[in-house]
Amino acid sequence: MSSNSFGKLLTVTTFGESHGPAIGCVVDGCPPGLEIAPEEFRHDLERRATGKSRHTSARREADEVEILSGVYEGRTTGTPIALLIRNTDQRSKDYADIARQFRPGHADYTYWQKYGIRDPRGGGRSSARETTMRVAAGVIAKKWLRQRFGVTVRGYLSQLGPITPDGFDWSAVEDNPFFWPHAAQVPALETYMDALRKSGDSIGARVNVVADGVPAGWGEPIYGKLDGDLAAALMSINAVKGVEIGDGFAAVTQKGTEHRDLMTPAGFLSNHAGGILGGISTGQQVTASIVLKPTSSLRLPGATVDVDGHTVDVITTGRHDPCVGIRATPIAEAMMALVLMDQALRHRAQCGDVGDVPPYVPGSVDG
Amino acid sequence: MSSNSFGKLLTVTTFGESHGPAIGCVVDGCPPGLEIAPEEFRHDLERRATGKSRHTSARREADEVEILSGVYEGRTTGTPIALLIRNTDQRSKDYADIARQFRPGHADYTYWQKYGIRDPRGGGRSSARETTMRVAAGVIAKKWLRQRFGVTVRGYLSQLGPITPDGFDWSAVEDNPFFWPHAAQVPALETYMDALRKSGDSIGARVNVVADGVPAGWGEPIYGKLDGDLAAALMSINAVKGVEIGDGFAAVTQKGTEHRDLMTPAGFLSNHAGGILGGISTGQQVTASIVLKPTSSLRLPGATVDVDGHTVDVITTGRHDPCVGIRATPIAEAMMALVLMDQALRHRAQCGDVGDVPPYVPGSVDG
Amino acid sequence: MSSNSFGKLLTVTTFGESHGPAIGCVVDGCPPGLEIAPEEFRHDLERRATGKSRHTSARREADEVEILSGVYEGRTTGTPIALLIRNTDQRSKDYADIARQFRPGHADYTYWQKYGIRDPRGGGRSSARETTMRVAAGVIAKKWLRQRFGVTVRGYLSQLGPITPDGFDWSAVEDNPFFWPHAAQVPALETYMDALRKSGDSIGARVNVVADGVPAGWGEPIYGKLDGDLAAALMSINAVKGVEIGDGFAAVTQKGTEHRDLMTPAGFLSNHAGGILGGISTGQQVTASIVLKPTSSLRLPGATVDVDGHTVDVITTGRHDPCVGIRATPIAEAMMALVLMDQALRHRAQCGDVGDVPPYVPGSVDG
Amino acid sequence: MSSNSFGKLLTVTTFGESHGPAIGCVVDGCPPGLEIAPEEFRHDLERRATGKSRHTSARREADEVEILSGVYEGRTTGTPIALLIRNTDQRSKDYADIARQFRPGHADYTYWQKYGIRDPRGGGRSSARETTMRVAAGVIAKKWLRQRFGVTVRGYLSQLGPITPDGFDWSAVEDNPFFWPHAAQVPALETYMDALRKSGDSIGARVNVVADGVPAGWGEPIYGKLDGDLAAALMSINAVKGVEIGDGFAAVTQKGTEHRDLMTPAGFLSNHAGGILGGISTGQQVTASIVLKPTSSLRLPGATVDVDGHTVDVITTGRHDPCVGIRATPIAEAMMALVLMDQALRHRAQCGDVGDVPPYVPGSVDG
Repeated sequence: MSSNSFGKLLTVTTFGESHGPAIGCVVDGCPPGLEIAPEEFRHDLERRATGKSRHTSARREADEVEILSGVYEGRTTGTPIALLIRNTDQRSKDYADIARQFRPGHADYTYWQKYGIRDPRGGGRSSARETTMRVAAGVIAKKWLRQRFGVTVRGYLSQLGPITPDGFDWSAVEDNPFFWPHAAQVPALETYMDALRKSGDSIGARVNVVADGVPAGWGEPIYGKLDGDLAAALMSINAVKGVEIGDGFAAVTQKGTEHRDLMTPAGFLSNHAGGILGGISTGQQVTASIVLKPTSSLRLPGATVDVDGHTVDVITTGRHDPCVGIRATPIAEAMMALVLMDQALRHRAQCGDVGDVPPYVPGSVDG
Repeated sequence: MSSNSFGKLLTVTTFGESHGPAIGCVVDGCPPGLEIAPEEFRHDLERRATGKSRHTSARREADEVEILSGVYEGRTTGTPIALLIRNTDQRSKDYADIARQFRPGHADYTYWQKYGIRDPRGGGRSSARETTMRVAAGVIAKKWLRQRFGVTVRGYLSQLGPITPDGFDWSAVEDNPFFWPHAAQVPALETYMDALRKSGDSIGARVNVVADGVPAGWGEPIYGKLDGDLAAALMSINAVKGVEIGDGFAAVTQKGTEHRDLMTPAGFLSNHAGGILGGISTGQQVTASIVLKPTSSLRLPGATVDVDGHTVDVITTGRHDPCVGIRATPIAEAMMALVLMDQALRHRAQCGDVGDVPPYVPGSVDG
Repeated sequence: MSSNSFGKLLTVTTFGESHGPAIGCVVDGCPPGLEIAPEEFRHDLERRATGKSRHTSARREADEVEILSGVYEGRTTGTPIALLIRNTDQRSKDYADIARQFRPGHADYTYWQKYGIRDPRGGGRSSARETTMRVAAGVIAKKWLRQRFGVTVRGYLSQLGPITPDGFDWSAVEDNPFFWPHAAQVPALETYMDALRKSGDSIGARVNVVADGVPAGWGEPIYGKLDGDLAAALMSINAVKGVEIGDGFAAVTQKGTEHRDLMTPAGFLSNHAGGILGGISTGQQVTASIVLKPTSSLRLPGATVDVDGHTVDVITTGRHDPCVGIRATPIAEAMMALVLMDQALRHRAQCGDVGDVPPYVPGSVDG
Repeated sequence: MSSNSFGKLLTVTTFGESHGPAIGCVVDGCPPGLEIAPEEFRHDLERRATGKSRHTSARREADEVEILSGVYEGRTTGTPIALLIRNTDQRSKDYADIARQFRPGHADYTYWQKYGIRDPRGGGRSSARETTMRVAAGVIAKKWLRQRFGVTVRGYLSQLGPITPDGFDWSAVEDNPFFWPHAAQVPALETYMDALRKSGDSIGARVNVVADGVPAGWGEPIYGKLDGDLAAALMSINAVKGVEIGDGFAAVTQKGTEHRDLMTPAGFLSNHAGGILGGISTGQQVTASIVLKPTSSLRLPGATVDVDGHTVDVITTGRHDPCVGIRATPIAEAMMALVLMDQALRHRAQCGDVGDVPPYVPGSVDG
């Protein structure tokens, strides 16, 4: 199976390089009858767009999605849905200088080692440009999950370098360029980012993503667990170095009596597990958290080598985000949505349509 | 593809329930000619065995591996290798009481929700008993990696609840029942565990696993990245709630100048990335870290519900580890070895045998 | 994905060599709740057994299936079902002479070329012994298809060398050792086979297999078509050299007006297509036909080479069928059943449970 | 895995409808460094083109391939290669009349049954238009096979309705619009086709496809056999109703002494097996044959039903081939080439690069 595909029953195959003619994806396995129009992709693509604010990089693409197949008279037909975005803002000259150099912290060196050839224009295939198509595919998954099951998938920036939220309000998240859940802190974030950009350095971040409304029973043990699939999907996002489900690494120091989620006839009393037990959803909120490393594309020089093995100093002069974690929020949402839709289809394949024979379902009083 | 299989070219399919007649696996894709004998599985199975010390649960299985196929005159033939272990220590009566109850923090409830039926004996399929076969399969991968590439995969317990290592020595790890890298702390660990067991509670842990000798170039972008595959493989281990590669979540607060691994003609100057860039190995040590939650099988009562929706208190009287993280060390090693062998095969499929056309390989001075 | 697995959602992985300790399979993806008992495998295994009559080879195995996993209190649980059969009748000495020779028409030479090592005992992995597990897995698929959809899968020998049926009666098929659909010809078949055996030669055959009750809509275009899957599944049976769907090769000389199946409100007027159009079932009988080559294991000497490249004459002295096609009937049934069950699960994954939203269904008056 | 993908290591995913905006494919897994240019696709696309001669349908597309990704400075980079062809000749109005009717012998009815919705324009996804992308992908496979192994894949029309070749000459095949191997018969074929077209009817055909230069050892038993993969790939071509390997159905009446291919130190003495034993290539010519049914798109009226269940007569007025088998030749070549390249990659994954450790290789004196 293609290593540029993921998903077992809802399979997304992406293609394209950062500065090639186009990027695109093929979404296969979507049930027929779902209404979808080109303009529905805009909202999430804009949320991800690198030119959204002065705190993310300056590339400004139209990013208009063309639906090439799989949709007839506005509805999916069950055949593969191909989506295409032309690369209109190709500043290849920005990257000409570093074609023979391996930028530290980038995939330049490893692609070269693996393939013996690499497309150096904007990072080629390893560029975060590829995630645009994940977001586009995620739009389809989000819509299907919402219409069919009432599932919603949302994310937010839960840490920006040293700064953590002082409060939490979902309604604030979409009202600031940081996807930050506490409006009062936004000016402080802007100050922090402006200083960072001026310094030429970058910073790490943490993004949380959650799904509400997921019914109990999604996920396939042992090697197709819901948490295993989420881990693979989220770790595959550029710059991600860690994935947590539920309490994650905090569980290292927890006692069993503290971690286990007790149940009553009214539902679970807590959700340390992140809505997944044994790889299968519990019916609670599904929660995950990821870390995104600080980008290595800096205006501050860094030692590296070139293809001839000579020492060189690299300075990145192109457009780059001082915090790539910010725009990872919609990407992480897309990956979670795609995993959930895939698992929903897998579940009904083996166990029949959701709604069949629920043996016993306690209520839910998640805090 | 079976959700009880993992690996693309080295494919491992496991089967079996904790207290069924047997557990087993089928390892397919192993190159022909590898010498392998039943007794070679013993060492790692004993390292994982639940009866290894008083600090892990009391189940004592012979765990003798029978090779059912794929080996002729002591060497692999290229056909599927089936391994079988009979379950000889089936104390089903221990579990009879809880057949109608959903133990909190376990997969009882979710299996019931998903399938409408579950094997309650010892957790059935969701038991960590299944990981025995991962360790067995991992023995094959470890041997092949060592013989073919000189790659070694090793793990250790890097945190036990609040306790972290005060020193590090690989030679200490295999000399104590905790896989702890600092011998002087072992008495303190024993004291901690004895108190914990007496209290009836359990504790979380962290395990680190590393691979040395991995050549640059293994890993398939975008959705078959080496780190993505490791995340899926490690997250699929029972009780794991988080996976880190390299610096992991510490990168949230790191600056780019701090995180990026600079290169000189003599090699990389650091390894914050954990030996992976863009999903492909750099030639450095590959490092990962996981968290294992405290087991929810406790002698301390916990509120839950039964299949009729009535409130019950569960007390686990069977054998259980107060810290399941301890014996996760060989399991994590096995999963990393299986992922690496799979990626090695995938790499030579696309790019030819390792050794072909290395375009440019700086040395390595990893710290 | 393992090359010893087939099926996308109902995945069967087989293992084992002809004269190794055991053969077995893992059936994954079966819906939970299906009642299955070890004795249910007997009927089809006996139909396939090589010792069924004097017209098939003399190996007599108990072929008792042990269910190792996936079944609890007599019902499938949704976890992988492992089935095991011990090889009890291992006459390895029969094959010792030819360990260094490549029997013509066998896989001896190609396994040697591919792997550099082969298990020569009874053909090792390439023996038709492997098909025992297909038949066992097929028992599960047949039962599920029958219970869930009323689908039945049946086969018969449609040609034995030059002999074709003079009449057709399903009730005759199971009453003779040839699976022949016309009872009056059975004595002639016995005479033919006795003469053939005496001559030391072998003969080819044709087997037809059909499924009744398949609803319209199963099959996934473009590369998971029902006919494509059937072709792969049937061609993978030992000795099969050709596969036809519907009229098959007769269509070479047909006109379009002759071949196309006209429709009326009462249903299709004919079934030249074999119940499949565009890779999707039409709701008619699904029909396939295969050819099985004459076995190359003959008492008549045949020139070949040994591992040193020297010319040798091979005479096969072990037990072998003069017509391997005869016992291919239950194997072909099993493969068709497994393909249909897999497609049924795939269909309900994408399109919902059968019964959902049938847009328009004309009746069926298949001739 | 997507049902619109095939191949395990060389994975081709196609998308697009006959009269949608575009058709395309993503070819993943191609080794890096292969030179490929857009104009290299022209030759085979023209060979397949529906407007090649007056004997095939009148649609005339430019069919210019755009390479969207995976190629840098004219060479493959190891990343997915996306190919796109815009549909420029969309005569949707031709098909408007039959949007509510199910053409007999077409996939109209089955797509409707499966999905509850279908794209009626020119057959939508079920149109042979899709095979254009197979041919395009096949160009890459053919080139790689030829450069890396000296393998060539060629096909020809081996029967047109009742007419069979009176002679055989490879050099004739590409010199006539029928891919016919005997030049002297071409006028007779033209006469036959002209009469057929005038009658409004269509005819079946047979295509043979062969590969020369395939080394021994390609193919993965048991469910990834070379012949099994070929059967699936060839059966998936529109209108194909049967697949043969080697002697195919002729083996029904063959004796074992007739069919088995004897070996001498100089090689095999015959090739009834079609170059495959036990699912693995023997080093001989690999041969396959397929039947293509007569198209059901006829100017002669045929009874069918519409979506309301009423009887209607269908007359196809659009452009259609009276013998779809003719242009199937390059499609069958492409499918064989793609299967062989996939198997070549799989072989070197498990067994090392071809050339490693050949244990013993007799010569080849194929007749």
